[in-house]
Amino acid sequence: MSPYVFRYEISPHISVHLECSGILHSSQSRFQKIEVVESLDFGKMLVLDGVINLTERDEFVYHEMLVHVPLFSHPKPLKILIVGGGDGGTAREVLKHEGITRVQLVEIDGEVIAVSKKFFPSLGLALGHPKLNVLLVDAIQYVREIEEKFDIILIDSTDPVIEQSEGLFTGAFYGDCLKALTEQGILAAQVGDIFFETDLVLSIFTRLREVFPIVRIYLAPIPSYTLVPYSFAFCSKTIHPEMGLGLSRFDRGLETRYYNPQIHHAAFALPEHLREEFER
Amino acid sequence: MSPYVFRYEISPHISVHLECSGILHSSQSRFQKIEVVESLDFGKMLVLDGVINLTERDEFVYHEMLVHVPLFSHPKPLKILIVGGGDGGTAREVLKHEGITRVQLVEIDGEVIAVSKKFFPSLGLALGHPKLNVLLVDAIQYVREIEEKFDIILIDSTDPVIEQSEGLFTGAFYGDCLKALTEQGILAAQVGDIFFETDLVLSIFTRLREVFPIVRIYLAPIPSYTLVPYSFAFCSKTIHPEMGLGLSRFDRGLETRYYNPQIHHAAFALPEHLREEFER
Repeated sequence: MSPYVFRYEISPHISVHLECSGILHSSQSRFQKIEVVESLDFGKMLVLDGVINLTERDEFVYHEMLVHVPLFSHPKPLKILIVGGGDGGTAREVLKHEGITRVQLVEIDGEVIAVSKKFFPSLGLALGHPKLNVLLVDAIQYVREIEEKFDIILIDSTDPVIEQSEGLFTGAFYGDCLKALTEQGILAAQVGDIFFETDLVLSIFTRLREVFPIVRIYLAPIPSYTLVPYSFAFCSKTIHPEMGLGLSRFDRGLETRYYNPQIHHAAFALPEHLREEFER
Repeated sequence: MSPYVFRYEISPHISVHLECSGILHSSQSRFQKIEVVESLDFGKMLVLDGVINLTERDEFVYHEMLVHVPLFSHPKPLKILIVGGGDGGTAREVLKHEGITRVQLVEIDGEVIAVSKKFFPSLGLALGHPKLNVLLVDAIQYVREIEEKFDIILIDSTDPVIEQSEGLFTGAFYGDCLKALTEQGILAAQVGDIFFETDLVLSIFTRLREVFPIVRIYLAPIPSYTLVPYSFAFCSKTIHPEMGLGLSRFDRGLETRYYNPQIHHAAFALPEHLREEFER
């Protein structure tokens, strides 16, 4: 391996440079370029089409916040749909919850799964769990056609700027998700950078509000993504996250490194300059 | 002005690169190198000895969180001591509070004040307020010798890695601050990066705990400083920040862009991986 600098843009005129010891894997799947890069301070990183998808050092923040905020808001989540999430990190967090009966993971790119199992075993291992079913199909078509209902849908996609994810950020897709949710169902999705990509994030929230009665933004710092806390969407028909309907289950031995009930509530506190735009 | 890239280190192997249109000011005072740099995405930046002290784009987060968290935790703050803060941003936020009778600012470097008044008028203007007194002396000696008591002490220094600030992070200085506080007095200080400089931040909190009965860490994202939320210390003899003893004053027209009562409480929520070390 030869050392090099991995560089990514935070905004048009700000970039972050990571010293790396080398590239462990590089391949081109039908859908995207998949790389595994060894960085000195973030550890191994999964890079899709040049964009950091996860790093060993901070993936726990992303996966715990995408999963536990909706799951602990729900009184009794049984059936979970994961859209994307081929690395296995989201499935790993979901499967920590007692009582889950079925996890359906719909990933378009089987090669992400293979690479994750090989290079990120602490994530990829979850993909072999008996309660988990993996389908290698386009989630847009899958959600449009299913008649099954889920308690939770987790959208663990790449960013909307990447072509093959664009369809996961449309009103039509969100409408299909709404139909695939039970009455107390919750959808959570990763969205973007509220500080440097405010307009993009706002446009996604506008689309979500046209579909879901309850739409909330919540935040968590993911240092390998942006310079400010990254945003997630919490959407439902009837449940507000403040109700914390499942929070009493937290103390029964579920282990986390980032999430806890204080963080659950704090993640929804919005700075004054964002409240007018995002809290309606 | 000639365009260039301003670069700063987040950790030994991670750096952030900001495209800049040029340097507006550069001088060497008795204490430090003072520069004003025009960056494309953060606006004008005050740079002391090569380290970003503030930027036009995000200084509001830093100054509001350093000031309003302690001031709204206090039932009736009248007399405020600012240690450092020569740019005027902290004074500007303090002076938004009704009822303040006296603000004492102790800045070692008069040239920071002059540069701020010229290049950052929205901050520097506060330095001419009639309730504000400016002393150009070493705050360590000043606090050691005063007999006056303050309701709030705000430590708005440069980082502990910079030589002339080191004395502001010692147990001896904290002990002198404790003596200069009223019975309900509160000290707030900027500390550092909990993710990439965890040991440094922990050592400062250990020293604070040896002096103050109540010591709490709170967080706010300041994108021009680090990749994760930056940490502040809240220290007092008797008052806990959750009590929010002054929060009812918030709605009487005090204008903020970051701080609000929800943020006040959320800033104290610690991720699980930090709770054991910081919440005692």
